[in-house]
Amino acid sequence: MQNQIVHESISEMKKYAKALQGNRNYVAKKTAEDPEYFRKLAQGQNPKYLLIGCSDSRAPPNEITETDPGEIFIHRNIANVVVPTDLNINCVIQYAIEHLKVHNIVIMGHTFCGGVKAAMKQDSVGGLLDLWLNHLKLVYEKHQDLINQLDDEDDRVACLAHMNVREQVLNVWKNPIVQKSWQDGHPVMVHGWLFRVETGFIEELEIEESIPNNLSKVFQLKFKNVQPQKQKQLVEEKEDDRAKSPSIRKRFQRMQSRLETEIRRLTITLQDTNQDVEKEVVDQVSEVLQKDLNFKTEDN
Amino acid sequence: MQNQIVHESISEMKKYAKALQGNRNYVAKKTAEDPEYFRKLAQGQNPKYLLIGCSDSRAPPNEITETDPGEIFIHRNIANVVVPTDLNINCVIQYAIEHLKVHNIVIMGHTFCGGVKAAMKQDSVGGLLDLWLNHLKLVYEKHQDLINQLDDEDDRVACLAHMNVREQVLNVWKNPIVQKSWQDGHPVMVHGWLFRVETGFIEELEIEESIPNNLSKVFQLKFKNVQPQKQKQLVEEKEDDRAKSPSIRKRFQRMQSRLETEIRRLTITLQDTNQDVEKEVVDQVSEVLQKDLNFKTEDN
Amino acid sequence: MQNQIVHESISEMKKYAKALQGNRNYVAKKTAEDPEYFRKLAQGQNPKYLLIGCSDSRAPPNEITETDPGEIFIHRNIANVVVPTDLNINCVIQYAIEHLKVHNIVIMGHTFCGGVKAAMKQDSVGGLLDLWLNHLKLVYEKHQDLINQLDDEDDRVACLAHMNVREQVLNVWKNPIVQKSWQDGHPVMVHGWLFRVETGFIEELEIEESIPNNLSKVFQLKFKNVQPQKQKQLVEEKEDDRAKSPSIRKRFQRMQSRLETEIRRLTITLQDTNQDVEKEVVDQVSEVLQKDLNFKTEDN
Amino acid sequence: MQNQIVHESISEMKKYAKALQGNRNYVAKKTAEDPEYFRKLAQGQNPKYLLIGCSDSRAPPNEITETDPGEIFIHRNIANVVVPTDLNINCVIQYAIEHLKVHNIVIMGHTFCGGVKAAMKQDSVGGLLDLWLNHLKLVYEKHQDLINQLDDEDDRVACLAHMNVREQVLNVWKNPIVQKSWQDGHPVMVHGWLFRVETGFIEELEIEESIPNNLSKVFQLKFKNVQPQKQKQLVEEKEDDRAKSPSIRKRFQRMQSRLETEIRRLTITLQDTNQDVEKEVVDQVSEVLQKDLNFKTEDN
Repeated sequence: MQNQIVHESISEMKKYAKALQGNRNYVAKKTAEDPEYFRKLAQGQNPKYLLIGCSDSRAPPNEITETDPGEIFIHRNIANVVVPTDLNINCVIQYAIEHLKVHNIVIMGHTFCGGVKAAMKQDSVGGLLDLWLNHLKLVYEKHQDLINQLDDEDDRVACLAHMNVREQVLNVWKNPIVQKSWQDGHPVMVHGWLFRVETGFIEELEIEESIPNNLSKVFQLKFKNVQPQKQKQLVEEKEDDRAKSPSIRKRFQRMQSRLETEIRRLTITLQDTNQDVEKEVVDQVSEVLQKDLNFKTEDN
Repeated sequence: MQNQIVHESISEMKKYAKALQGNRNYVAKKTAEDPEYFRKLAQGQNPKYLLIGCSDSRAPPNEITETDPGEIFIHRNIANVVVPTDLNINCVIQYAIEHLKVHNIVIMGHTFCGGVKAAMKQDSVGGLLDLWLNHLKLVYEKHQDLINQLDDEDDRVACLAHMNVREQVLNVWKNPIVQKSWQDGHPVMVHGWLFRVETGFIEELEIEESIPNNLSKVFQLKFKNVQPQKQKQLVEEKEDDRAKSPSIRKRFQRMQSRLETEIRRLTITLQDTNQDVEKEVVDQVSEVLQKDLNFKTEDN
Repeated sequence: MQNQIVHESISEMKKYAKALQGNRNYVAKKTAEDPEYFRKLAQGQNPKYLLIGCSDSRAPPNEITETDPGEIFIHRNIANVVVPTDLNINCVIQYAIEHLKVHNIVIMGHTFCGGVKAAMKQDSVGGLLDLWLNHLKLVYEKHQDLINQLDDEDDRVACLAHMNVREQVLNVWKNPIVQKSWQDGHPVMVHGWLFRVETGFIEELEIEESIPNNLSKVFQLKFKNVQPQKQKQLVEEKEDDRAKSPSIRKRFQRMQSRLETEIRRLTITLQDTNQDVEKEVVDQVSEVLQKDLNFKTEDN
Repeated sequence: MQNQIVHESISEMKKYAKALQGNRNYVAKKTAEDPEYFRKLAQGQNPKYLLIGCSDSRAPPNEITETDPGEIFIHRNIANVVVPTDLNINCVIQYAIEHLKVHNIVIMGHTFCGGVKAAMKQDSVGGLLDLWLNHLKLVYEKHQDLINQLDDEDDRVACLAHMNVREQVLNVWKNPIVQKSWQDGHPVMVHGWLFRVETGFIEELEIEESIPNNLSKVFQLKFKNVQPQKQKQLVEEKEDDRAKSPSIRKRFQRMQSRLETEIRRLTITLQDTNQDVEKEVVDQVSEVLQKDLNFKTEDN
């Protein structure tokens, strides 16, 4: 009996110690490549986007996207839920937008998600989690007809995980900091990803709400301390969709939206090509877009 | 002007698209090594521990510990704070302990932390964040004499980041789920790490409260639905520290505590040696511990 | 100038001091009626129900229902919202049910509610409140067609306040503590009230979900630690709605539900009569119900 | 058996129906006094202060201060705790200050508080409440030497309830909205009350932190969007405590602080006198204060 305890104890400690040993290997490897690597890293972070993912150990954002330290600002919770009144996640969003000035927010769900699975069942999973999962159950209630058509449980979980990502993208838009940022001329795109654990591939969901234009008016906010002329333009643009003089900001938004569509199309074809090809294609798109923009400008 | 907009838009999109391209490279690499890799991963997660870290892009837990998908369950927020009444983090803790049965929880802070730095200044950083940072300011208030002795700002940030990890370790212990788990015979160790961004190394903090014995009695909870005989033993053990018949659970706790001390000592020496040496030493410790246990057992 | 400051300061202090003077009058009055009043009150509280209302100063629950200290356990927030992941309100619900054993929970909204009004507008009302009001905007989005048919703004506010009460009644049901209580044989009724500030009258909303039977199955939870035989009965009752031997608990639920309907009907007629008449009528109902119950019992 | 169920059901319903009957009596009484009472009330609220109290049914703020509907904006939770990261309470504070422009916030604790009592014991009171009570346990830990000197449990509860009020007053000051309000020239006083259930009297605690000057610098925030000249003055005043030209705002603060001290002293003496006497004394204080202010002004 006591032998078993010792072995269990040692086994647990080894698992724990393994990570610390891994850290030493990591430092050795990195400094062999570049002795100044960590000193540079300490200069500051300049992450490209904020990713809100699930705590699940099988969905580590950096690994599965081969991104380096310094590239993604990350929040992870049970089933990647964006609760409007959760101060924890809202602080992360505020820091990312106001202090790190990120332009992209990604909600990443994943297949085989334990939280999603639990939300589809009636069994209580414990007081706190039951409360938390109510936010997922809301999504399930909305789409249960669609989801329950699927025979396989894993498929149903994948389907709700997908629908949950869509819902949380909308919840990000409902955040006043995200909306104000957009109105202040600092546009933020909100993307939805589904990480398919069984293949390793990330699926980019086509979400119309990646820009806030399609958000229900009920949730669209107006802010007082946006500069008066900007506010005026906003109103004009609303009243006349074919506005004669679109603001720089508006043009940037359109550009982003158009670019996203193009790049999304390209990323599929580029899947197995090298970086040079990608660069070339992106340059071509750039040209097309410039013409597009010129055309629109001349139009005015 | 519009050229600049196009270039900015493309630049933002490229950064975003890079991660998706990285994902394709990652899948190609992994499936080349093992075509069944992802199918196996989809079977379920069995993470070794829960890590609560900072959202900072420079502190990705898996990279810096060279751990694989499936090994660490992760929550990340601004400055790795464990607020007792934050449902978000408490759900993560509940899921990790009750559903994944992890035996180790790690709080990982890091040097050059923007949240820690902001908490030491008086400048408001925005409504939500000001509220959140109050939890850090509490730690700063407690240790400001020590911290302000340091001349360099980076050192002060590192010192508060260190103190913050200690405080959050205590906050984990105050969670009733963690305490109940311990009493139910499923011991959980709580560790504190400081990731030094400037060197890449993780420092393991020596925290007496890695087991709950040293926690102030004010925060120690008693639960009704622990089995009666166990509850009785608990009381006995409290009244007599040299208890004649320590429960299996108690022995496991002591073992863990002792092992942790030994391994901590060894990890320093083992820093540059290979895994075989580590294994050998751990086996020696195991022997020592078994004797220790036998001795105590015979004693009864 | 400085005179104005002095007068403002004194005016503010007087308003504040008035309440303390009021307290002295109150104690004098109460102890004149019963010198032991407060000593008795200190023995403990035994409130009849939990009321969740709005912070609005014009909606003080005790005044408008002429209830005494010791009768209602109260939580008040902006626009009486029950956020599933709000620990503050969930603690109040837990305390009321598990420790005070209340059998009735009331959600009380009111007309002319500033929070409800703000939720129907697009103007930002400040970071924290914008987040909070998202829960109201959800209700508005659902019922906007109905609400916007009304010409008068006060009517629209009243209509959304009404709909909001219905939604929050459902949110109470989604709480695992409320559901578990019901399954443990301690039934809790959840009621919705609309306080019409302009008339002073409380309207009791007819809400089908005052018992959880009509709640969507998606949100109905099953608990492990309910006693096995009870759990079995629950399943039986679900499989066969015309169950031959309804449990005591089930009968109590039916009784409550039936009684509520009767008393609701009677309270309208009893509006201007005295307590003796009410007592008499309630006794008559009691007889009817007993027969009803006997009948059902014989039926089995 | 079934008789008992019927009687219990009826008893519960009667308790519930009693409040609705009480409402009708209340309306009848109020409209007899003033037929326009409720129509006037519906015009808007203009509460004199925000009161944060306990949900306990024995501590209804309006009754015990004889204040009318429309006078106090109220939030009540378990043991009147102000958690810095609780969005619920922070929304109430924001609404009270930014929208209702209140100048006084009161934290009201009370003796015989069930939440305070539970926080002093080690017995778990359920998952959510255990988490919530951690905020009270922090206060208990700090003052346990003082508290545990008292022999009687009720006295210990009263002592911790008192200490808790002091702590929560500080927590209100840590709120950026309260601090910004002060800097924007809209001073807010924060008061602490202990309601002694056993006598009915409210004790006003002498709290040095009723103005933010004495708050630890660690928690004092500086805001960017305060008008430049004001910000400049703030700095000057900090650098030179005997500032030659104190701003109007500063003078208002001093006035409030001085007035509070005087009125506090007077309320004790005025306890059994009528309102005319109070008015007279307040007028005298006003004179004294004007001289005080003139003196200071001449001094410059």
